[in-house]
Amino acid sequence: MLQVQSSYPSKHTFQSAERPSHEEYAAMARWLVSQNTWGVLSTISKHLNGSPFGNVLSFSDGPSDRASGQPYFYLTALDPSLTDTEEDSRCSLTIAEAALGTCGNRDPESPACAKLTLSGQMKQVEEEELDFAREALFSKHDEMQYWPKGHHFQFYKLQIEDVFLIDWFGGAQPISLDEYFRAHESGQTDVLRLK
Amino acid sequence: MLQVQSSYPSKHTFQSAERPSHEEYAAMARWLVSQNTWGVLSTISKHLNGSPFGNVLSFSDGPSDRASGQPYFYLTALDPSLTDTEEDSRCSLTIAEAALGTCGNRDPESPACAKLTLSGQMKQVEEEELDFAREALFSKHDEMQYWPKGHHFQFYKLQIEDVFLIDWFGGAQPISLDEYFRAHESGQTDVLRLK
Repeated sequence: MLQVQSSYPSKHTFQSAERPSHEEYAAMARWLVSQNTWGVLSTISKHLNGSPFGNVLSFSDGPSDRASGQPYFYLTALDPSLTDTEEDSRCSLTIAEAALGTCGNRDPESPACAKLTLSGQMKQVEEEELDFAREALFSKHDEMQYWPKGHHFQFYKLQIEDVFLIDWFGGAQPISLDEYFRAHESGQTDVLRLK
Repeated sequence: MLQVQSSYPSKHTFQSAERPSHEEYAAMARWLVSQNTWGVLSTISKHLNGSPFGNVLSFSDGPSDRASGQPYFYLTALDPSLTDTEEDSRCSLTIAEAALGTCGNRDPESPACAKLTLSGQMKQVEEEELDFAREALFSKHDEMQYWPKGHHFQFYKLQIEDVFLIDWFGGAQPISLDEYFRAHESGQTDVLRLK
């Protein structure tokens, strides 16, 4: 039965491999998240006494046909990111269009070469979301399933509180969580899509 | 006259486009810095009330034949990175081998796909270093020289205090600032090279 959901992740999927127009802010954000497989997680570091620290991490927001907008991670406490977020869960995931190679001759810092920062809190994935998180990550990061059991990798998610997008001249574009999670490839945000 | 310098940036250059062996830690760090043109700068954010924030920035450590290991940036106060570092200068620049496309089938999060985080303080470049900073950036980022004058871009440098490298299994490799700045392509750190 068709039901509009108010909780995240929603049932809205984003499946377009085509770059949205820069005016479709929420669709651009979702496109960057669905197309990229890695980003940098910024945390308040424990090992550097509270300095901001950045770490390269793989992520996925869903299998390629069911992108949810919700970034999942597969983390071990041997990694500084998890050590940091267990002390202070605030963090940001930064994703660059430059990593996709679709910026042409534009400089990576050019506003026209899109960049997205999702900020919020790192949370361990709960039971009911585990299957989706596992499928999301393992479908895009094949080798993860073979990572050493002894390292105790577990599934985590960035609970997004703020979306910061630059995809054109004129500064960051305001995108609400609702717009972000409801966006789909046409750039409209008010049509429900089911899995 | 040949003189060993104790200050940074040193006269040691790093010119190799070839990936060093993963056991040559300092050379690997310098290779990542010299080959990459962009990274993510992590800061303590002003607009998110102290949460860690990451921003995609272009950088350069020198013209391609005179890589210094010292990352330079061209920043405007319209950008959150500079707003943040003017409030709290602590920051980290994270650079991924994944961005170079040289990791083959290895996952971006695999320790064998190298990642580097340089942490320290953001400082405005002083008069005597301005020419080198300008040449470093403009030689690798052609369009920067045409960026709007009205945005008041200025040259900045990350004054490195800590080098965090993962380029193989077994955790981060300790690299001192001396080893980092003195490294050259053979992986040795004790032979002086002149410009």
